Formats: sequence, structure tokens, C-alpha cells
Amino acid sequence: MLRVDQTGTILIKNGTVVNDDRYFKSDVLVENGIIKEISKNIEPKEGIKVVDATDKLLLPGGIDTHTHFQLPFMGTVSVDDFDIGTQAAVAGGTTFIIDFVIPTRGQSLLEAYDQWKKWADEKVNCDYSLHVAITWWSEQVSREMEILVKERGVNSFKCFMAYKNSFMVTDQEMYHIFKRCKELGAIAQVHAENGDMVFEGQKKMLEMGITGPEGHELSRPEALEAEATNRAIVIADSVCTPVYIVHVQSIGAADVICKHRKEGVRVYGEPIAAGLGVDGSHMWNHDWRHAAAFVMGPPIRPDPRTKGVLMDYLARGDLDCVGTDNCTFCADQKAMGKDDFTKIPNGVNGVEDRMSIVWENGVNTGKLTWCQFVRATSSEAARIFNIYPRKGRIDVGCDGDIVIWDPNQSKTISKDTHHHAVDFNIFEGIKVTGIAVTTIVAGNIVWSDNKLSCVKGSGRFVPRPPFGPVFDGIEQRDKVRNELLRKVDRKPYEDDNTKNSSK
Amino acid sequence: MLRVDQTGTILIKNGTVVNDDRYFKSDVLVENGIIKEISKNIEPKEGIKVVDATDKLLLPGGIDTHTHFQLPFMGTVSVDDFDIGTQAAVAGGTTFIIDFVIPTRGQSLLEAYDQWKKWADEKVNCDYSLHVAITWWSEQVSREMEILVKERGVNSFKCFMAYKNSFMVTDQEMYHIFKRCKELGAIAQVHAENGDMVFEGQKKMLEMGITGPEGHELSRPEALEAEATNRAIVIADSVCTPVYIVHVQSIGAADVICKHRKEGVRVYGEPIAAGLGVDGSHMWNHDWRHAAAFVMGPPIRPDPRTKGVLMDYLARGDLDCVGTDNCTFCADQKAMGKDDFTKIPNGVNGVEDRMSIVWENGVNTGKLTWCQFVRATSSEAARIFNIYPRKGRIDVGCDGDIVIWDPNQSKTISKDTHHHAVDFNIFEGIKVTGIAVTTIVAGNIVWSDNKLSCVKGSGRFVPRPPFGPVFDGIEQRDKVRNELLRKVDRKPYEDDNTKNSSK
Amino acid sequence: MLRVDQTGTILIKNGTVVNDDRYFKSDVLVENGIIKEISKNIEPKEGIKVVDATDKLLLPGGIDTHTHFQLPFMGTVSVDDFDIGTQAAVAGGTTFIIDFVIPTRGQSLLEAYDQWKKWADEKVNCDYSLHVAITWWSEQVSREMEILVKERGVNSFKCFMAYKNSFMVTDQEMYHIFKRCKELGAIAQVHAENGDMVFEGQKKMLEMGITGPEGHELSRPEALEAEATNRAIVIADSVCTPVYIVHVQSIGAADVICKHRKEGVRVYGEPIAAGLGVDGSHMWNHDWRHAAAFVMGPPIRPDPRTKGVLMDYLARGDLDCVGTDNCTFCADQKAMGKDDFTKIPNGVNGVEDRMSIVWENGVNTGKLTWCQFVRATSSEAARIFNIYPRKGRIDVGCDGDIVIWDPNQSKTISKDTHHHAVDFNIFEGIKVTGIAVTTIVAGNIVWSDNKLSCVKGSGRFVPRPPFGPVFDGIEQRDKVRNELLRKVDRKPYEDDNTKNSSK
Amino acid sequence: MLRVDQTGTILIKNGTVVNDDRYFKSDVLVENGIIKEISKNIEPKEGIKVVDATDKLLLPGGIDTHTHFQLPFMGTVSVDDFDIGTQAAVAGGTTFIIDFVIPTRGQSLLEAYDQWKKWADEKVNCDYSLHVAITWWSEQVSREMEILVKERGVNSFKCFMAYKNSFMVTDQEMYHIFKRCKELGAIAQVHAENGDMVFEGQKKMLEMGITGPEGHELSRPEALEAEATNRAIVIADSVCTPVYIVHVQSIGAADVICKHRKEGVRVYGEPIAAGLGVDGSHMWNHDWRHAAAFVMGPPIRPDPRTKGVLMDYLARGDLDCVGTDNCTFCADQKAMGKDDFTKIPNGVNGVEDRMSIVWENGVNTGKLTWCQFVRATSSEAARIFNIYPRKGRIDVGCDGDIVIWDPNQSKTISKDTHHHAVDFNIFEGIKVTGIAVTTIVAGNIVWSDNKLSCVKGSGRFVPRPPFGPVFDGIEQRDKVRNELLRKVDRKPYEDDNTKNSSK
Repeated sequence: MLRVDQTGTILIKNGTVVNDDRYFKSDVLVENGIIKEISKNIEPKEGIKVVDATDKLLLPGGIDTHTHFQLPFMGTVSVDDFDIGTQAAVAGGTTFIIDFVIPTRGQSLLEAYDQWKKWADEKVNCDYSLHVAITWWSEQVSREMEILVKERGVNSFKCFMAYKNSFMVTDQEMYHIFKRCKELGAIAQVHAENGDMVFEGQKKMLEMGITGPEGHELSRPEALEAEATNRAIVIADSVCTPVYIVHVQSIGAADVICKHRKEGVRVYGEPIAAGLGVDGSHMWNHDWRHAAAFVMGPPIRPDPRTKGVLMDYLARGDLDCVGTDNCTFCADQKAMGKDDFTKIPNGVNGVEDRMSIVWENGVNTGKLTWCQFVRATSSEAARIFNIYPRKGRIDVGCDGDIVIWDPNQSKTISKDTHHHAVDFNIFEGIKVTGIAVTTIVAGNIVWSDNKLSCVKGSGRFVPRPPFGPVFDGIEQRDKVRNELLRKVDRKPYEDDNTKNSSK
Repeated sequence: MLRVDQTGTILIKNGTVVNDDRYFKSDVLVENGIIKEISKNIEPKEGIKVVDATDKLLLPGGIDTHTHFQLPFMGTVSVDDFDIGTQAAVAGGTTFIIDFVIPTRGQSLLEAYDQWKKWADEKVNCDYSLHVAITWWSEQVSREMEILVKERGVNSFKCFMAYKNSFMVTDQEMYHIFKRCKELGAIAQVHAENGDMVFEGQKKMLEMGITGPEGHELSRPEALEAEATNRAIVIADSVCTPVYIVHVQSIGAADVICKHRKEGVRVYGEPIAAGLGVDGSHMWNHDWRHAAAFVMGPPIRPDPRTKGVLMDYLARGDLDCVGTDNCTFCADQKAMGKDDFTKIPNGVNGVEDRMSIVWENGVNTGKLTWCQFVRATSSEAARIFNIYPRKGRIDVGCDGDIVIWDPNQSKTISKDTHHHAVDFNIFEGIKVTGIAVTTIVAGNIVWSDNKLSCVKGSGRFVPRPPFGPVFDGIEQRDKVRNELLRKVDRKPYEDDNTKNSSK
Repeated sequence: MLRVDQTGTILIKNGTVVNDDRYFKSDVLVENGIIKEISKNIEPKEGIKVVDATDKLLLPGGIDTHTHFQLPFMGTVSVDDFDIGTQAAVAGGTTFIIDFVIPTRGQSLLEAYDQWKKWADEKVNCDYSLHVAITWWSEQVSREMEILVKERGVNSFKCFMAYKNSFMVTDQEMYHIFKRCKELGAIAQVHAENGDMVFEGQKKMLEMGITGPEGHELSRPEALEAEATNRAIVIADSVCTPVYIVHVQSIGAADVICKHRKEGVRVYGEPIAAGLGVDGSHMWNHDWRHAAAFVMGPPIRPDPRTKGVLMDYLARGDLDCVGTDNCTFCADQKAMGKDDFTKIPNGVNGVEDRMSIVWENGVNTGKLTWCQFVRATSSEAARIFNIYPRKGRIDVGCDGDIVIWDPNQSKTISKDTHHHAVDFNIFEGIKVTGIAVTTIVAGNIVWSDNKLSCVKGSGRFVPRPPFGPVFDGIEQRDKVRNELLRKVDRKPYEDDNTKNSSK
Repeated sequence: MLRVDQTGTILIKNGTVVNDDRYFKSDVLVENGIIKEISKNIEPKEGIKVVDATDKLLLPGGIDTHTHFQLPFMGTVSVDDFDIGTQAAVAGGTTFIIDFVIPTRGQSLLEAYDQWKKWADEKVNCDYSLHVAITWWSEQVSREMEILVKERGVNSFKCFMAYKNSFMVTDQEMYHIFKRCKELGAIAQVHAENGDMVFEGQKKMLEMGITGPEGHELSRPEALEAEATNRAIVIADSVCTPVYIVHVQSIGAADVICKHRKEGVRVYGEPIAAGLGVDGSHMWNHDWRHAAAFVMGPPIRPDPRTKGVLMDYLARGDLDCVGTDNCTFCADQKAMGKDDFTKIPNGVNGVEDRMSIVWENGVNTGKLTWCQFVRATSSEAARIFNIYPRKGRIDVGCDGDIVIWDPNQSKTISKDTHHHAVDFNIFEGIKVTGIAVTTIVAGNIVWSDNKLSCVKGSGRFVPRPPFGPVFDGIEQRDKVRNELLRKVDRKPYEDDNTKNSSK
């Protein structure tokens, strides 16, 4: 599927390599898709492609931990498919995405997985991987989880605590899913909102005549996200398995994560570009189309402090890696809910702008260092999902996925110039300083001079082995805990008669 | 039912009256069961009973907010009935108790209420009132709640989040119950433990061979109590109704309450004598009988800091009033679970020793002032349950329920000397300094010189009107919140075709 | 000094008495300045003054814990003297104020006290009391503190941690002052800002050319208030004496107080009307006169969440009682600092509007109940400063200081209608619903129908005895702590030679 | 200074390399002191030293951030000099130490620095570096700080908030020192205890007759450490410079650090081996010699939870890197304080056992992963002090300082077998599983088979350049803050006369 000019070989001169532990000036040579050498003054072999990166940074390709390309959802399909979605990704400096297989209730996980993988393989412009959602529980599900882990390169499974009567699982089901995750060495992921309360909240809003997009947030406020986050963590910790909260959207939920981490619980939090870049007051916009475009779950919060606080958490590592939940619907799709916000397909863009949005709100505000930026947008995701250092690091032997980043160049985000299929951009009009000027995937330039040059279907599925770093030390923890679960040896109970007679 | 010598009239000389706002030296005159005069140097009328209280404190009679006398539970009945239970109460300085009507799933609330009231009326030695548990949800339940509030003097309803497959209600049911409570002006009470997780925990312990009483705590650790506490508060706050957490047993749960109070949520917390007086390490005792005697839910926590921290919370009012959950079973009853801790009837004593236990651990440690002691053991309960100042205060016009308290007199608690029917006392061997030397109910001495002189059945049912102080300002809160729930006025959505054609 | 028509006797009919523990409908009779009877349907004796309070509330007269009337400060004198200041007070429903004697460094405390008392006695229109500031430390100061406590009715002493080179004391001095307070049974008060850092901050702002009022806040940000608050509490707790933080102005400082209370420390916090009613963004106003009028220390904070959060703390009792720091300077006085904000005399109004500002922001927002309002504006202050229940409660035997409060009547605050001497009102234009329609001091109407009828000099100095309720249980705490300070008995150290030879 | 057999070249076969970002099996080749190759199956060149590390871990050599070798203190000198001290270090797997130059008040910093460097250069068995304490403030100090940074390889300066009348600086001095640190790109370090209160506490204890070692902790409790920690952070943040709290010994102080980090403050915390490995109850030991051996400042805390909680903080990165404050005095030196604990020379051992103590309490408890262990004991220190990745990482080009670690091998710590000069070991009798079996410094084995083979004086001074990673993004922060410090443009103040006349 490679084009003739795709050799996977390139020499980048005079850049500043930024990894999550340090940065330094160096040349970088990629050969056949793999980083071959990192040192000063590498002489280009004849015929080799050379790019100059003077005054630029070389970042490990961004990793978006959370996309929904061409997702069938609420009766329609998200418009960014695996082709367009990954085009948008590389145009923004992201070179790896992890999408979600979402089986319907009752559907075989394997069947759904195969479907998704086929969709992706045909179209992806960069490497990718797949999480699998667990929307029901049975012996079959349990068996298929094992197959997915052992034979299909899946090491993460997501539960929904929201979407009652559809994807939502009960606490008890979640407990069994978490136990199974632990046995298999897979990380448990959770969409954390109290689905029962959301359901009641939606009814209440509609009864009050609040049918517009603002009803979306009002029916599922921050408190319901924080509550479910807490519950999921408690349940995961009760089986001592690592848990990963997807799209942490509120200060309340982030506080919950932080509190449990402080007590040593193995919990990871994923903020998303939307939550770090804008606030939810847009849902109150007087233009329905505008307001509806911001509808996603959990809602982007109207509290204007949120994005700054989430960034502070990210900086110090109480949130871990940044996804997007990229799941785009055009206005005519969103319009399914024009008279009832509960029918608006949930989802926003993000995969293209994620890196710049985090840079602008993180690095340019002094909250994030360069190294922390790399950790948050790439390295930590690679570690959590166990593909590090193949992904997430610029080092000899790693995949040649590299972004040439200009910290001084600016652009203004717009739907008119973005590479999504969707007709709206939630970051419209935001000026960001710090952008991907060139993106290299497997040693090939796929984005440069504002032009895409990627090859549809050229991306590879990257299997993720189980028992990755998130499981480090878990065995030891179990041992320590089990020592507390010790039976007290006692003589059998005797009633007073027995006692007396036995004297 | 009065004895001849019960006149309801008494003059107490030279005591120090302690209310929750201040203390002062004074005589107190009770006539016909009602406090008539509080002043220095009241001259006794002829023939009137006079007691001297020099160097003693006069406290408003204690209120135990949480008892289960003669409760049918787990196939047996708690041994302290309303007669013995209230004897124990007055022997310790408690002159008012609130017991729980617990209908079974499907049972009429009114029927259960009538049953309980009959049981109590025949036997109580002091005034009392009744909470009602809601163990299922239906139109009938909703209607009967209204009748109980409007015609039967009930202003508090309890939900169980634990006891799966028995009393437990779901989040959604709880939401509806809370909404109903709010409409009726009744306080929502919650037994907060994550019942699903307890259920799984119990299975796990039994599978591991942990069948003894230690399995009780191990299967329902602190985290499950804190989680459910949080969930209950979030749900109650979503309908903006006051919520009362019964038997707060852990630092974790207390922290949750405190956090929500800090954010202005109307939540009340009830620690109990057991949790303030002992720790749960007793469940690891090598004598099964001893260990089983401490089994109650939520468990008394093994963390030795717990009782001191709960007392700190009580001192500053982040916990409110002290109950006992007095629900006593003898060894042969507890023995139903001799091979399986899940079958041990849950419950401990407390109603007799509550006042002294709080004094010893609160006042004698410098954590509680005298006034705070009165607030925590009497006045605040009266206010929360809307019987203040009839109960909970020594003032003219209040009921003549008074305890003559000797802060310097000591005793050692023991099953051999207590007034319970049960054959065990969880406070066995604890020396307390600060005891009720005389207890006066409605102007009659019922306890003095270590002797009871109460009259079975002489206590009265005290109806509690709805919309008490816990509802103060709730209307205002609703108003403020509803202002935030405003619909955005928008033009209807138009698709691009419509738009264009309409130009 | 009484006017002929001042009989101290009045009958208030049909009001709703609100104390901090409950409210109820009743008539109230005051005779000779003292509350004589509280009951329904009191028949007026002939000739007695009767006022109707139907649909009105009867509140205990407000207590302003913090005023600076006619204070010599920064080379000028605050314009509200004891006459005008107390006129403003009663016009707003405050019937008792506590002012501060502030001796200069080196000055005799007694001399300063006598001066202040003379100033006040000549002019006050309502009862009052005096705190004394300790601005230096010596044997003489220590001795005079004793005299003030034992012979002059002072039970509170304030330290300044700010105002370097003027009032500020060092940590070590503060430690000795606190120890002395404890010995004498007086409450230690603290103005908490890190004076060294404020000093450096002021230099920095002036160097940067920031000479306007905004420099005031920028030079002494929230963090410096929170830091000093923490330090003061730690030092007070190290001697186990109650400490009272005056004018808590920031969320940061309130959080510090809350944290220590949670750990059982005996600390009290006083928010003020300014901090509860407005925010500090006014200091950035483009009109210098306007901006300067808001300058006080610690600054009113620009963070708009502050006032709501402080009110939440007040509601749940983590802040205790509301003062004002009323210390007013006219524009021409403020203008001393027109080119240098450090020379603007610090101070704002508040004594008149305090009650309505708290009602509007507390009760009308659903944060405070009526009872909590009374606690926060009157009763708790009376208890802390040990004049309860003479002040702070409507009860038989208490002083006849009563406010007839109309919760439904509104007014708009303005310098044009206020009763201060100052030419500015920081609450200008704020509409409050809930005002004092009639104020009664010692049984005499002093404010009614928007007219003052008070008598200059008629107020009385109220001595405050030491060892009030804030000291309850302190002895017990000391005992518990001292038990931890036990010497370990050991054999004397022997060096190896000794050891060997002694064998 | 090298011995003949020290070639700096070694091949380690079959180990598991553990860096702070991941671990993997590999051979490691060191040539001439520098890591040359990391890959599987490196063939040994002839004559090269080869060691097998099958089933062993290869860790970056440990870094002890805090030692006091041969420190003149309290009239004596610590007994571990730079020779013995670094022998002990390498015997435990630590290959780099940073010692403190401590000038006396008034002494030239350069003079002191030269003295210390001379002492070290003559004796060290591994590489080292030097912090410099600032114990007074003047123009000269300011100038010499610059010389130390620019010409002598110092990038860290420590202030003492304790040791009143000796090393202690005031808040104002500290402010100026911090500002200077920022200008120079040096990290500000702080010994955080409230020295004034410690001073008073010591007097109090001696007055109470508490003269033994328990008086040490009683006179400087946790609260004084937490207070000073808070104050130091607030002051550092006011100048926006990174601050590093040395020897965090209490939960209280760690909480303070965590709170400020949560708000984005650039603060680092250093726990020490003593605080992570034992508790302070030893100071109550009945053997004076034993008790005195544990005396150091801030005290090791008696609260038994402390060590576990500090480890939790370390695991999640709210504490950063582990030092020891190794400063050892023999019993006869400690005996200077036999009748007065304030005269006991402060200090404990740690440099030898640090790695195993952290492993035992961190890794073996499931709190730390292997990678987190490396981060906490080596990599993070290297980054903070700007010598990464030369130190702190096993990678090509890094220094060949490597520890061969056997996670399964145990030993019991004892003064009888340790390599210190001191006659006591605070970890006496603790069994650790996880020890350094071989230590390699610059490619030479210095410890193996329980034998030292190091060369006195062979270590090198490693200069540390300023503006290291702790300053990343600080400029950006300053920019953001300075935008808030903007002068409001106003017309000059006019008094009313001027105003009127100007109309």
C-alpha cells in the first residue's frame, strides 16, 4: 500500500529532541520506519531525504487514546471515518490513535472486533489500536475477552456507567468485568456518569420544557460524573485492578481521582482536548446549531475554571494522558435532536487540534514543561497501553513517528481549514502558538507545508500485550492485601448447655 | 398507667443547668411533667418532691435517634423489647428514643406502623417516636408515606443501600423516595453501604474460607460505606432535600459528609455509641462469642483512630447527633451464624451506655464542651426531628425530662450490671467517669440510687410534624437553583436548504 | 442621659421571635430595658408603648465584633466617631459593637484603654465593649493585660501580623502574648497577613510603577493571608489557647481555619460585611476615588467566588460571627495615598449595612437559615466574647435589644441615605430585601420609620469576664496533652569505659 | 588515583535494565567509565571483565541528595568522613552523593566551599557534588552565590528555618535568598521547621524536666514542620522560583507540599531513608544511648503511619527523591547531650541502607513499581539537580554507575556489619529483601561479594549547571503572572474643590 516515494527513511537535522525525561539538540535518522541514530552531525547518505528542524522541536508522534471514527451511534454514523480521521490526526501531529470497538448488547465481541478492524485496516493513514467496550456480561463475553487479549492484541476494555437501557452496565456487572480484566492483565476503562440519575435528569429537563442543548448539561451535572468516578474507582480497587477513567471532564471528577491516588489506588485519568480547550457555556449559545455542536458526554463543563484546573492536574500527573473522544456529527445529524436534546448525537472533534490545544493551554501558560507535554500527549499513553517505547519516545529502535513542532508558529483553528469531515469545529477562532509543521509516520512525511501526503490504509494495527506497566507491582499489592484477609482460628461455638456439659 | 407516687412534679435544687448554648447554676421546678420555673432559690411547696443536685449537672434527657427494640430480623427477634430497652435507656440518662418501623418488601407501611406502635405503646417507659423504613417503591408506598406524615406523626423515612435481596433499594428507587420525602417535608435517612459490593465481598470471604466474624468487616470495608454515603448525598442533593446518614461508622464516610457540607449540601450524620466507644478489632477476637457480639452493619471499624476522629467531627458539628442502633441478640441467636458470618444477626447494645460513652470519650478528652455534649446527645436530635424544644432543652415549658449528671462519679460498664436483656456488652470493662445518677421523665424519677422506678407503658408516642428546621431555607435554595435551570430561547433549527430557500 | 420618653419599656405584638436555636410566634415585653415576658397574647398595661410586628421577625440585636470608630490611623482619624458610628449601627439593626483600643508601641495599655473608653462613653448610642490590641511586648504589657482582664472588663487581645514597623509583632512576641492570654482566660485575636512579605510586595509594586489602589491587593495577595492565618493557629495551638482570626477575607484563609478545626483546634473565624457583600475588583476601578474607597487590609479579594464561599463556611459554622472592620475615611483622607497606595488609609464602612448584606447574600440565597443568620450576626459573637445571653438572645432576663426585621421589605444601599459620616459606601446600589424596620435598644426605640431617635452617650460599657465559653474544656485538653509530655525514666548514660569498669 | 585493575570497562550479561520509564532484559557494556552499548547478546572482547546478572536487575546507581560527611556541628564532627561515607554508600548501591557546604554566619561562602571541596576530593570513593547553605545575607553573600553558580558548579542553596541563633534566617532574608536563586537559576532548598517555636518548645521541655531524647520530638512537633514548610513554599511562590523541601519527615508537611503542588506551585519534596524506614518512637526508648541515636531534625515522627504515607506520596510523585541526611555521631558524641537533649548532636545514618530500605518499604509492599523505585532513588534527583542523564539513567553515553540488584536476596541490617564509622544503626535488625550485590562506579566494581574494592579519592566532583529542568517553563509562568500585574490607567485624583473649579 506504500507509495513509490515512501521509503521510511529520513534524516532530520538540527532539531531539539524532546522526550518526557529531557530535551537536547540532535539530528535524528530514521531508516525503514525505525529510528536508527540520534546524534549530532549525522551525515546524510546519498539520496536520503533530509529535513531541517533548526529552531524546531522533535516530538514523539502524538497518541490519541480515544477516538470514535465512523461510529454507528444513535441511528447515524460519525462522519470522520478512519481515513479522514487519521488525516486530521497527522495534520495536527498525532500519529497513533486508539479507537473503540463497541459491540451492541448481546453481540459477540469478536464479531464486533472483526468488523471494526476491517473498517480501520482499509483506511487508516497511521498506526492504530483498538479498545473494546463491554456492554453486557455473560460467560461468552468472559471467554471472548480472553481471546481478544491473548490472540487479538487488546489490553483494555471499557464499561459505560451511563447510557441507561443501551450501553450501561450495573455495578455488579462492572465488578465481574473488572475481575476478568485483572485476570487477563487488561486495563479496565470507565465512562463514569451515574446513568440512572442522568436518565431522571433528562426526564426532568424535558418536563420543564428545557429541550435545547443546555438541557444536556443540566441533566447530567458535574456531581453525577464525580459520583460515578468515585464508585468505579472503589469497585476497581476492591478487586485491586488498574482502572482508567476516560474523558475526565470536571474538577469534581478529577478531585476524586486525585483523592484515591493519594491513598495509593492505581487509577488513571484521561482529560480530552475539548475539556482542556473550551468550556461548556457554548451549550447556552443562542444558535441551536452552535450549541448542539458542543454536546458530548460527559458534558464539557460551563465552569470556566475547569480547563485550567484539569491542566494543573495533568501537569503534576494526577491526570495522565490526553485523548479527544473525537466523534463528529454534522449539523443535519445533530438535528435529530432539534426538539429534544436527548436525541442529539453526542460527540465533538479534537483529534486534529489536540496537540496545539494542549500546548496553547499548557505550555504557553507555564503550566506544562515541554517534557510534561510529551508525557501527557504521547509517552504516558504508550506506557499505560503497553506499546512503549515503540511508540511515545524518540530513541534508537523506536518507530519513526516524529513531529516537527514549531513552538513559535501560530494558526487560528477553523472548520474552514481543518481536515475533518465535520462542518463545525469546537475550537473555531482560537489562536494557537505551537503547531506541527511536519508530521512523520514510520519515517515518511505525511504532513508538511500545510499539505497531507499520507497513504490510505498504510497504517498498521499495533497489538497491545497484556500485563503492561499498569500491572507492575499489582501482584505485590495483592500479596500484601491477602495477608490482611486471614482467617482467625477459633474453637467452634458452644452454647451454654454444651459448655456446661463439657465441663 | 401511672403509679400513685407519680405526680410529674419535682423540684431540683442547686444544680448546674446545661443547655447546648450555655450553662448556669439554678434550681429547676417541674410540675405535671412540664418545666415550670428555672431560677435560683425556688422555695419548695409543701409536699413536693425535692432532690438536691449540688455539684451535679442538669442535662436535657438524652435522645437516642436510632433503636431497634424487639426487631424481627434474620429469623429471630432482638431481645431488648420496648420495656427492657427503655429501662436501659433511662438507666443511662436517655429519656427519648426513636425506633424504626421496618415493613417487609411489599408490606403496607401503615400496617407495619400500626404493629410497631402497638408493640411500643404497651411497653415504653419513656416517650418515643417512630421512623419508617422504605424497602420498596410503588404508588401505594407513595400514598402511605403521605398518610404517615400527615396523620401519624412520622417525618423521617429510611432507605437501605445494603441488604441486597431484602431491604435494599436501587438508586432509582431511592431517587423517587427522596423526591417524595421532599414533597412531604420528611427527612430522608440512609443506611449507606454499597449492597452489591457487600454481596460480592461476602461470597469472596466465604470462598476463601473466612467464615468467622472477621469476615463481616472484611466483606464490607470502609470504602464501601464511604462510596454509598457519597452516592446517597449526591442523589439527595440532586433533588435538594435534606438527607441524614444513619450510623456513620468510618472516617471515610465522615469525610464524605464533611466534604459535601463544605459545599453547602444539607446533610446530617449520626455516629453511634459503638463507633465512638470501641473499635472493630474485637471481631478478630479468638472467642467466637465475643467476636460475633460486635457484628453490626456498617461494621465498627478496626482502625483505632476512628472513634477519636468521629468525636472530632461531632465536636465541630460535621456530625450531628448520636444514636446507638441498639439491636441486641444473645449468643444463641448470634450462633445462627456460627459457621457463616453472613448469618449472624447484626446488632449491638448502646442505648444504656451512650451518654457515658460520649462523655468519657468526648468531654473527658477535651474534645467536647458540656454544651456540645448536650447538643450531640439531645438538642440537635430534637431539632432535626422537629420536637425541639419540647425535647432537647431545659427551659420553661419544655417536657420535664431531665438527667442529673455527676461528672465526677465513675462506673465500670458490664453485662453483669447493665439493664439490657442481652448477655453481652460491647463496652464491657470500660470505666467511665460521668454518669446519670438520677433520671427524671416527665417530672418523675425513673432512675436513682442505681434503681429503676419506671412504669411500663407510661411513655407517650410523640408525633413529629413535617417541614421542621432541616427544611428551613430549602425553598429559597430551590428558587436559586431553578433560576439556573432556564431554557435558552432560540429560533428553531433550520437545515441549510431551508436556510437558503428562506433567504 | 436618658430622654424623658425613654422608659425602657415596650410591648411588641405578633412577631416571630428568631433565636439561633428556633423561631416561634410570640409577643415580647420589655420592661426597664430587660426582657420580661415572652408569650402569646400579652395584654399591654396602660400607657405602655406597643408596637405591632405582624409578619415581621424579632431578632436579637446585631453585634458587630469589629469596629474602629474615630481611630487615629496613618496620620488621620476615621470619620465615623462613636456617635455617628453607633447611629449607623442601630439604623441597620446592630445594637452592640466591640471597638479596638490600639496603643502605640511603647504606650501603656491602661492609658490607651482609658482614652478609648472616654471617647466612647461620651458618645455611644448603644451598648459597647472594647478589645485591646497588643502592639509590643514587655513585663509592663503583661501586667497591664492582667489589670485589663481583672479590673476593666476586657477578655480579648489582638495581635497584628501585618503593619511592619508599626503594629506588627514577631512570632515570638505573639507566642508570649498567647501564653498570657491563656493564663488570663482571654481570647487571642489575630490580624493575619505575613507583614514581611506585604512589605516586600509593596516595594515591588511601587518599583513596577503600580502606585494605584490595585497595588494594594497585588502586594498582599490571598496567599499571604492564608499563610499568616496558618502560622497564628499553629502558634496558638502550641499553647492550647483559643484563637480568633479577625476579618477572614479569602477562601484560602477560610480553608486554613477549616482544616485546623477539623483536627480539633479551637479556632474562630470572623468574616466581615465587606467580604461577604462585594468583591475586590473595585480596586481596579478607573476612578481613583472609587478604587481607593475599597482599600482595607486584608484586601477584599477580587476572586468573585469568595463571598459565596465565605457564606457557605459561615452557614455551617466553620466561620463564626460577622464583624465589619468599620473604619471610614473620606476621599480627601484616602487621597493621602493618591500617588502611593501604601499611604491610603485602610478602611471601609459596614456597621450599618452588615445585617442586610448578610441577609441578602445568606438567607435570600438559601445558604443561611433564619436561625443561622441570628447565630452569625449576634448569638455566636455574644458567646465567644462571653456576654451571652445578656446579649445575643431574645429570652426572659436578657437585655431588651431587639430588631424588628421585615424579610420582605427592600431598600437600595447608598451613601446618600446612609447614616455614616463617610462620603462613600462600598455597597452603593446593592438592593437588599430584608431590613431592620425598627431597632430597640434597652427597651427604647432608637430607629423606626427611617428615623433615628437615639440618645448620644446613653450606651453602656459592658464588661466581659474572662474564661468564657471559648475556654470550656481547655483545661481538659491541657490535661490530655500533658499526659503525652511525660519524661521517660532512664538510667544515666554511661560511656563504654564506665560501663566496663562498672561490670 | 586509579588502581591498576581499574579500567572502567565491564560487560554485564543477562540482566534486566530498569530505568524510570521502563525495564527490559539486556546486556550492558561500559567502556572507560561510560556506557557504550545496551543490547542483547553483546559478545565480550577479549580480556574484558564480564559479570553475569541473570535474575538480577541493573539499576542506575543510587543518588543520595543529602549527606553531611565529616560535618563540624555542635562542637564535634560527624564520624562518617568522605571516605567512609562513600564506602558505605557504594556498599548499599548508591554511587553519587550531594553533600552540604555550611558556612558559618559571616563566613565567606567561597572559603567554606573550598574547604569542603578539599575535604571531599581527597577522600571520595564515588562522584559527588555540593549544595551550599546560606546562613546569612549580605551583598557579599549575593555576589558569592553568583560565583558559586557560574564558576563552581553549584545550582542549589539551602536555607535553615530552624537552629535559631545559629543557621536560621528570617523570612525576609529567605525572600532575598530565593530571589537571588531565581536570578541565578539555582534551586532554593529549605530546612523547614519554625525555629522560634522550636526554641520556645525546648525551653518549655527543659523547664518541665524533660531532658531526655523524647524532649527532642516533643519540643518540635509535626505542626512546626508543616507550618514552616507552608511558609517557605508561599514565599518561594511569591517570587515564582522552584523550592525543594529537604527531609520531609511528617504527613503534615507532605500534605502541605501536595496541596501547593495541586495548585501548580513548583515545589519538590525529599523524604529520607530514616523517615521511610523507621518511626520516632525509638526516642522514647529506655536506653538513653538507643534513644539519642535517633535524634535528628526534623524529628523522625512517632506516628506509625508516617512511613507508609510518605511512601505513598513518593509513589505518585508528590514527593520526589530520597536522601538520607546521613550525619553520624557516636554514642560518646551524642552524650554531650546526656543531661539536655538540646545538646545532642543531631543526625542519623542512612547512606548505606537507603536503597534497601526504600525497596523493602516501597517495592515489597506494592506501593512502588520498579520504575518508580529508580525514579525515586536516582533519576528524579539527577533531573532536579541537572546532572541527568549523565547520572540517573542506564543509557548509551551515561556514566557507568550501575547497581546489580538482587530483588530476592535478603540481609539483616546491623551496626556490626555496616560500613559506617558510627557505632549504631537506626535500622538495626530490619530484614530487607532486595539488595545491591554488586556496585559499579564508572565501570569499575567497587562492591561485590560483600567486599569493598573502591579507591579513596577516585570520585570526581560533578559540577551542576544552573537553569536545569526545574526552571523549565518558569519564564512562561512569570510572563503569565506579570500580565496580571498591570497598572490601571487613571486620571489623577482631584479633590472636590479642584473638581468644581475645573468645571
